[in-house]
Amino acid sequence: MSVTAAKGFLAAGVRAGLKKSGNLDLALVVNVGPSAAAAAVFTSNRALANPVIWSKQVVADGEVRAILLNSGGANCYTGAEGFQTTHASAEKTAELLGISAGDVLVCSTGLIGEQLDRAKVLTGIEQAHAELSNHAGPIAAEAIMTTDKVPKTAHRVAESGWVIGGMAKGAGMLAPGLATMLVVITTDAVISSEILDQTLRSATRVTFDRLDSDGCMSTNDTVALMSSGASGIEPSVEEFQELLTAVCHDLGQQLLTDAEGASHDIAIAVRGAASEDDAVEVGRSIARNNLFKAAIFGRDPNWGRILAAIGTTSAEFDPYNIDVSINGVRVSSKGQPDQPRNLVSLEARAVTIDVNLNAGTRSATVYTNDLTHEYVTENSEYSS
Amino acid sequence: MSVTAAKGFLAAGVRAGLKKSGNLDLALVVNVGPSAAAAAVFTSNRALANPVIWSKQVVADGEVRAILLNSGGANCYTGAEGFQTTHASAEKTAELLGISAGDVLVCSTGLIGEQLDRAKVLTGIEQAHAELSNHAGPIAAEAIMTTDKVPKTAHRVAESGWVIGGMAKGAGMLAPGLATMLVVITTDAVISSEILDQTLRSATRVTFDRLDSDGCMSTNDTVALMSSGASGIEPSVEEFQELLTAVCHDLGQQLLTDAEGASHDIAIAVRGAASEDDAVEVGRSIARNNLFKAAIFGRDPNWGRILAAIGTTSAEFDPYNIDVSINGVRVSSKGQPDQPRNLVSLEARAVTIDVNLNAGTRSATVYTNDLTHEYVTENSEYSS
Repeated sequence: MSVTAAKGFLAAGVRAGLKKSGNLDLALVVNVGPSAAAAAVFTSNRALANPVIWSKQVVADGEVRAILLNSGGANCYTGAEGFQTTHASAEKTAELLGISAGDVLVCSTGLIGEQLDRAKVLTGIEQAHAELSNHAGPIAAEAIMTTDKVPKTAHRVAESGWVIGGMAKGAGMLAPGLATMLVVITTDAVISSEILDQTLRSATRVTFDRLDSDGCMSTNDTVALMSSGASGIEPSVEEFQELLTAVCHDLGQQLLTDAEGASHDIAIAVRGAASEDDAVEVGRSIARNNLFKAAIFGRDPNWGRILAAIGTTSAEFDPYNIDVSINGVRVSSKGQPDQPRNLVSLEARAVTIDVNLNAGTRSATVYTNDLTHEYVTENSEYSS
Repeated sequence: MSVTAAKGFLAAGVRAGLKKSGNLDLALVVNVGPSAAAAAVFTSNRALANPVIWSKQVVADGEVRAILLNSGGANCYTGAEGFQTTHASAEKTAELLGISAGDVLVCSTGLIGEQLDRAKVLTGIEQAHAELSNHAGPIAAEAIMTTDKVPKTAHRVAESGWVIGGMAKGAGMLAPGLATMLVVITTDAVISSEILDQTLRSATRVTFDRLDSDGCMSTNDTVALMSSGASGIEPSVEEFQELLTAVCHDLGQQLLTDAEGASHDIAIAVRGAASEDDAVEVGRSIARNNLFKAAIFGRDPNWGRILAAIGTTSAEFDPYNIDVSINGVRVSSKGQPDQPRNLVSLEARAVTIDVNLNAGTRSATVYTNDLTHEYVTENSEYSS
């Protein structure tokens, strides 16, 4: 399961003492090969955490042999000292594994602007190295949790026998992200780093990138993909893309369901768009509208807020020829009320907003959550 | 006071029965001249309410003789029937005043997607007409309230004797706006509609446009300015601009303080920017960041969220050469922690965030509020 579902991977999750709670807070994932092909995508925030600055360089050559992850501190805006902590962590990991530090990806999550305790991290790495095993994927998934209520793992087995699996943390999203999202996916398929990069970008574009819990983008978001090639099976690009996208979608939906303080999972399906970009822009605008999100929390089918959010976009449409349905009830069409809003039930956790822009044939679905008291509580008490 | 502070204006506020609460819900402001010069700015939302569609045409010739305003319904996405209600309201007002309907501006605020009760509006207009007086400005200000806790009015008297005054409603903002913002400003200065338009746009650009309570933009926002010329005094453009901007700033700050559910008023001063647009973009990005806003509610000086918000913009800066102060304490500089965050007190309602981008000499201040439990409560219960 998790990052050890595929052959050729070892993992560990330990207590390094970075979290005040004393919970698991450091994870290590090692690719024992034979291949070390890898790819990664990172936050598009210009304020980059030290581990992201480091890891962008590491993955540039398409080879990664280990990924070190810690919760309990983002190591962002921590200056030269913080970067040295990242560097020292990679060196320590490399030394223990007998590899180059330039093949060690580092991911951190937690509060921005606080130094990580370097000594604790280095000791934690020793401990994690000692505990590496081919069945500790689920423990690694626990060690990267911050405000997550449950660990998130997924895997798929191809008909031809190769495996892909992964873990994720975050009450949040790649870009934009609510809190940092970290994802590690491993596969034993035989596949080049170029194809890994291409398929990872395609998969994240339609999965993690379409989650928009609160419009905030983290400084640390990372999705990494490693292939060991240990199955000896080389799938077609299409087959690999399909299972990779499935694992990303699965993990993404788990992130959504566990998003901070949410009481509704909202799928905003936009169709009839002139372009996919238009559909995404409209979906995102609705997903980021606090008035809409608060209304869903209050089980209030206040569809005017949906149309007002659509009206702020630059997408192609006639504002008075848009159809809006909430949970299957068409509440507005052609700029007027349609079915009575009290026919809409918002009791269930799952909510579907269907928007037809009547301007073309393209579509996209953006996923978000409602804005709740718990969201405010969790995010007002985070660092204090 | 209010819209009757300046000479040449009559006003009224009545109970038309549009609000379930039975409170005042319809206001009328009449310019008795001698001049009828006017200007107005409207929401930039593409989803326009019927009264906005109507009023844009009315003000196009620079003449407005009366403004009818109602709370209790936005008359937006109400189709042809809704537009006819706006039209009939203007006709009724014009008939009673002996003027052209093409000189009657109409503003509405309330729930989107519900028809206004046309008969009640028309009866309310008769009543308002019967009660018009030159001292009812404060009552008109009460009649346009929705979730506002207090009516908002302001006025200034020029040294040379001319007067400018106004009223505002809205726990919200022009563009973007939280809930609809309606503002009516009147002056007895002698001034052309061209100068009114030019000075109004300059004033709103640096006042209402820099309020960003929750990033949501209303379908009904309107700021209207009428001149009666009744003082017989013709101020210089500079003098007029100064007092107009002062009244807009005053009303804007009242809106901010009364924003839905807010417990902190936050001024985000961005300096050292390469351009004013950059400064506004950075300020707005911070103002719209729910994580930052929830932290301020929790009295948590979590400055990493400020830098993460800045990092999502396209403004010119080096992300590791930005200074951030909260209430005078420089918590981060040059990409690192500076003063300890626990030196920051967030007990007071007023909060100042000072950001120096170290990229130029331009500056701008954007105003916002914190994200609170009350915000969620108010906006989850609005229409239900």
